[in-house]
Amino acid sequence: MIGHGFMGAAHSQGWRVAPRFFDLARQPVLQVVVGRNAAATAAAADKWGWEESATDWRDVLTRDDIDVVDIVTPGDTHAEIALAALAAGKHVLCEKPLANTVAEAEAMADAAARAADRGIRSMVGFTYRRVPAAAFARDLVAAGRLGVIRQVRAEYLQDWLIDPESPMTWRLDKELAGSGALGDIGAHAVDLTEFITGQRVESVSGIIETLVSERPVLAEGVGLSGTAGTERGTVTVDDVALFTGRLSSGALASFEATRFRTGRKNALRIEISGSRGALAFDLERLNELEFYDATAADTELGFRRILVTEHDHPYVGPWWPTGHMLGYEHGFSHQASDFVAAIAAGEQPRPSFADGLHVQRVLAAVERSSDTGSAWVPTAP
Amino acid sequence: MIGHGFMGAAHSQGWRVAPRFFDLARQPVLQVVVGRNAAATAAAADKWGWEESATDWRDVLTRDDIDVVDIVTPGDTHAEIALAALAAGKHVLCEKPLANTVAEAEAMADAAARAADRGIRSMVGFTYRRVPAAAFARDLVAAGRLGVIRQVRAEYLQDWLIDPESPMTWRLDKELAGSGALGDIGAHAVDLTEFITGQRVESVSGIIETLVSERPVLAEGVGLSGTAGTERGTVTVDDVALFTGRLSSGALASFEATRFRTGRKNALRIEISGSRGALAFDLERLNELEFYDATAADTELGFRRILVTEHDHPYVGPWWPTGHMLGYEHGFSHQASDFVAAIAAGEQPRPSFADGLHVQRVLAAVERSSDTGSAWVPTAP
Amino acid sequence: MIGHGFMGAAHSQGWRVAPRFFDLARQPVLQVVVGRNAAATAAAADKWGWEESATDWRDVLTRDDIDVVDIVTPGDTHAEIALAALAAGKHVLCEKPLANTVAEAEAMADAAARAADRGIRSMVGFTYRRVPAAAFARDLVAAGRLGVIRQVRAEYLQDWLIDPESPMTWRLDKELAGSGALGDIGAHAVDLTEFITGQRVESVSGIIETLVSERPVLAEGVGLSGTAGTERGTVTVDDVALFTGRLSSGALASFEATRFRTGRKNALRIEISGSRGALAFDLERLNELEFYDATAADTELGFRRILVTEHDHPYVGPWWPTGHMLGYEHGFSHQASDFVAAIAAGEQPRPSFADGLHVQRVLAAVERSSDTGSAWVPTAP
Amino acid sequence: MIGHGFMGAAHSQGWRVAPRFFDLARQPVLQVVVGRNAAATAAAADKWGWEESATDWRDVLTRDDIDVVDIVTPGDTHAEIALAALAAGKHVLCEKPLANTVAEAEAMADAAARAADRGIRSMVGFTYRRVPAAAFARDLVAAGRLGVIRQVRAEYLQDWLIDPESPMTWRLDKELAGSGALGDIGAHAVDLTEFITGQRVESVSGIIETLVSERPVLAEGVGLSGTAGTERGTVTVDDVALFTGRLSSGALASFEATRFRTGRKNALRIEISGSRGALAFDLERLNELEFYDATAADTELGFRRILVTEHDHPYVGPWWPTGHMLGYEHGFSHQASDFVAAIAAGEQPRPSFADGLHVQRVLAAVERSSDTGSAWVPTAP
Repeated sequence: MIGHGFMGAAHSQGWRVAPRFFDLARQPVLQVVVGRNAAATAAAADKWGWEESATDWRDVLTRDDIDVVDIVTPGDTHAEIALAALAAGKHVLCEKPLANTVAEAEAMADAAARAADRGIRSMVGFTYRRVPAAAFARDLVAAGRLGVIRQVRAEYLQDWLIDPESPMTWRLDKELAGSGALGDIGAHAVDLTEFITGQRVESVSGIIETLVSERPVLAEGVGLSGTAGTERGTVTVDDVALFTGRLSSGALASFEATRFRTGRKNALRIEISGSRGALAFDLERLNELEFYDATAADTELGFRRILVTEHDHPYVGPWWPTGHMLGYEHGFSHQASDFVAAIAAGEQPRPSFADGLHVQRVLAAVERSSDTGSAWVPTAP
Repeated sequence: MIGHGFMGAAHSQGWRVAPRFFDLARQPVLQVVVGRNAAATAAAADKWGWEESATDWRDVLTRDDIDVVDIVTPGDTHAEIALAALAAGKHVLCEKPLANTVAEAEAMADAAARAADRGIRSMVGFTYRRVPAAAFARDLVAAGRLGVIRQVRAEYLQDWLIDPESPMTWRLDKELAGSGALGDIGAHAVDLTEFITGQRVESVSGIIETLVSERPVLAEGVGLSGTAGTERGTVTVDDVALFTGRLSSGALASFEATRFRTGRKNALRIEISGSRGALAFDLERLNELEFYDATAADTELGFRRILVTEHDHPYVGPWWPTGHMLGYEHGFSHQASDFVAAIAAGEQPRPSFADGLHVQRVLAAVERSSDTGSAWVPTAP
Repeated sequence: MIGHGFMGAAHSQGWRVAPRFFDLARQPVLQVVVGRNAAATAAAADKWGWEESATDWRDVLTRDDIDVVDIVTPGDTHAEIALAALAAGKHVLCEKPLANTVAEAEAMADAAARAADRGIRSMVGFTYRRVPAAAFARDLVAAGRLGVIRQVRAEYLQDWLIDPESPMTWRLDKELAGSGALGDIGAHAVDLTEFITGQRVESVSGIIETLVSERPVLAEGVGLSGTAGTERGTVTVDDVALFTGRLSSGALASFEATRFRTGRKNALRIEISGSRGALAFDLERLNELEFYDATAADTELGFRRILVTEHDHPYVGPWWPTGHMLGYEHGFSHQASDFVAAIAAGEQPRPSFADGLHVQRVLAAVERSSDTGSAWVPTAP
Repeated sequence: MIGHGFMGAAHSQGWRVAPRFFDLARQPVLQVVVGRNAAATAAAADKWGWEESATDWRDVLTRDDIDVVDIVTPGDTHAEIALAALAAGKHVLCEKPLANTVAEAEAMADAAARAADRGIRSMVGFTYRRVPAAAFARDLVAAGRLGVIRQVRAEYLQDWLIDPESPMTWRLDKELAGSGALGDIGAHAVDLTEFITGQRVESVSGIIETLVSERPVLAEGVGLSGTAGTERGTVTVDDVALFTGRLSSGALASFEATRFRTGRKNALRIEISGSRGALAFDLERLNELEFYDATAADTELGFRRILVTEHDHPYVGPWWPTGHMLGYEHGFSHQASDFVAAIAAGEQPRPSFADGLHVQRVLAAVERSSDTGSAWVPTAP
């Protein structure tokens, strides 16, 4: 595993726990964590139960006892590491967004396609696809329970920047993060839309904006934020992204990604409206899915709150009895399980680097639209 | 109409509005309001659009131009007025609770039965039966959508007495009110249970209790409460009633009526659990009914929130388009409409005085149970 | 009152009920209903309790016993009637949208301004401003409880057109309705945003679209829809409008108006995010307002569900005790009460025709933006 | 760890994960799982990552390399194992209910008290105390934010027995389970009430009942239930328990435990009403706590939905950023962490065996009350 921030903890938990609940064809070994700071990396390896730590990821790629490389660094380093790992014949799991630029993502998707021909697997870490409610939503759409999809509303709302004195972190620096709310969380909204509907966003019109452009630099990190230092830095990424997309079927999808929706902590929400039904999901209530069956009698119409904790719901079987809740990090166990299963089966897992590239193209098109007065921009190359 | 408190305003609105939306076989005329204080009564008549006011209800009963007597006084006067009105050949609508004692209620039910033989109609004012969601709940039960009823939970939660300095009103005086939370709001929980399930509460075990037994006397009334005077009075009614009832079918129903559930303003809630489905209703969201269809596929089980505003829902048709909400007082229009319809059709309306008597017996049984260490007490005479 | 459709019923109820609860300086008399079809108009007058009916509104305007003209016809006739009524020295209440074109609305606002100099009052019927929760939301913003407003999301979601065989009504004919979802319900979203924030939408970028362009003609109307005939007609208005607006303060507001959000019946929702707090409102739960106080301790942050039924909430005092719900049509009583109060006080009521004109300009700008590839269009003339 | 059912999986996950997030003074080693069936136990040990398996728990107690014994067997075996383990000088964590009879529980609490004098720690597994929202609720009560507690409503609602053909499991056999809904889930409702309020239930009146007394025997277990065999067995435990308790302060608490509340999957709910505020919690939304501050301005009163995912909430700090949800099994990690901390600090952890004994006495008193016509029964010995 390359990197050891918040995502490192989540991925470690995924690898650790997956084999205890899911029957994996191969047993993952938590071998080595790689980071630039030797002491911090060693501490992380010890804390999270990895065998070793290292400071040079290139060295690690040469090792025969490493089969899988899990990339959890900031987006600016994804391409270089992933390309090298694929070249070295390692299966690669890469955190989202796939890369900070479309060009990098194209190179990665291209390399992944070629690697696949040699049996090397790659996957991008849109874990919210693996929340049982989201996977079940996709199943309902695929089964035709929504009929023709008429509209989609997808939003990812947070509020951790509403205080203008909340400090800079690497997530506010375009060099490191590539993008702000758009790439960090808007990417999830786009991916979830494409995953559940089975459609692509083909063109977009929108606007991105930085609401607070100067903040104190970070003194010490706590959670996604931290304590403020005395100097000030310039925010170079967007705080808010509002855009409309045209899906493959012609339906309109409206998107919002923001770190300024006061009171909303982690509200990745999607509502899909079809001719025969509708679905609504909110990550803040991740064990629930609301389903509306428009074919019911007029007097019995209503959104029903399904607790997605039944044995037959996706991913739920190996966990707890009905009504016992899963949490945020369970998606990482599902991801680890699915990735191992794909490697063992010799099949291409989803979301592929090509899927990740497509999301990247959507994000780039939104930026281009914003730069050109919200003109409609196609997402195809 | 005899009486002109808060219920007088609600009944007036019911009589005024009903003919504007419902096709009534006879047109109600708001003729005369009766009250002890001539000036206050005249002001109420003027305010609410009645033709006249009067101070002696006995005089009014002798008038030929009065067909219907609507009793909205405190419970201690219900029996005397209703008996006289029925004797005078007037149709009688009487606010709940029917009376302050079972003996009075028995006399009233007896008189009502005899009057019915002469074509004189009587009804007791459990208006919450006429909230569309409650009427629709009854329809679902009657249609077998819940299967065998296994359990009922019915509660009426308010919090207007949590401040120990909140003043005495007539509702806290046993002489006038007959009972506290039990009779004022618990009566609604019992009636709604019997209405929706179509069953009777046949025996009860429970406890009633006064949590704050001394309060300032009332200086001036505002809403259900008012401002405090300097003297203190003794609360002679219960603040809280907790009881379990056995229904006709043998199922257990658990009840709570309280003015001390902090934060709950007017939460008359009922949840009915059956072998094929369940229903949940909350008066604080009176346009909604939650319905759970246990016959759905395992993965699609869930309470569905039905907006009870469709044209085909009970009482809804003559009002507004789908999704346009009704309020508290609409039940009084439905009550007026139903009462007029029953009079015109020569049929006995429900809830009858016999229904009201039964509720009264349940309340009395709860008091007796509370007095005897929560022993089980039958509700039959 | 000119017109006698669904809005006629609502306005009649407002005029009838307002004086029974609010102390009005002048007593409204429900004098005459005007409609083209003599029999239907007479029936409506009788049903709703008006003294007379008439077929020629011009005649009515010449009568000395008419002080107020209430216009509830489709939008294409608003301008002609309102201009004539103002010229005749009548106070005018006009349903929204103010007119079907900006030019008409300009003429009306101009006439209203001139009439105001002669003491003639005019108001446009955005009644949702008068839902207590909405008025209280404005009060909280005005009191600074939200701090600097960072973002607004306003949406009005319905689903009565999801069935492609649902028939044409006048609301789907541009000649009569002027606009579809945008003008019918989007107008409310815009007005409510401007009302609560106290800001104007200064420019917009967006798209409007017709999802089903051919439908059966209407055989008989029921609610907002009706039964289908055998012939087919062309839908000439939009089904969906998605747009982003820039407010006076520079904050971004994102809007949606649609008749295709499956399962949403009448969901006019607004969420306002500020530096110190946030508000969320949903017309489907119109007695509630969610308020988030961002200045609370970190561990105690949360949206609180306020039941807007307290004596001290706007408009609530004269109604029922705490926890007793109001419904859709109560806003019409508040509107009647406010209009009479303004006339009596010789003050200009809000929303004025100028306010209505501004909303009209926003709608026109959205149409222009949609026609020009979602380019940003200013709303100023 | 003795036992390897559903609770074994949860405890294993707790021991595995706790040291990866919490700084434990001593590192737990998952040494040996004990079960009667050698093959099944070995499989469980392998699956859950334990070093060894064994079939005789007495042997294991003699081992010097075992410091802690974790008992997750059915309740009928708790006393024997725990007494032996304490005698052998092992720290003991015992699943709830502490035992199947009060006599057993008394012996265990007595042994635990004596062991504590020798530095041996013991704890009973009411893990729901360690859901962050529940721990935070206790903090709010302890800080006086609720004022004087007036009423408590605690209920644990499930529905997995509504189908009369749902099969027998050991949980329906009094010999093994000791009790039905009362002991299995009612115990949690009682413990949570005592934990959050800091008070004891001192007397009770109630009823327990078996609604379906004959069921097919179990063929194969799935979740809490399983598939039905052809023979039939007799249910010897209660399906439903309804009881009222008197707390130390004199306040009344009303309880319900049931496996027949259709549509409720795992709804452990508690609402505490006080003179200054109220709290509501529902395990089906375990990351949320509703808090009502009755000292707010009248117009701003309301239950606020707190996402209990802030860094400063109990147990949350070492996990994920704000807004990232925890699940059911996180309570087991918190339990493991707290137990290790208590052992290392040489302090008595809570809930102690004495706490578990008290809950047992409450349950026994409910059974006695039910047997004596719902008479009030003290819980003191």
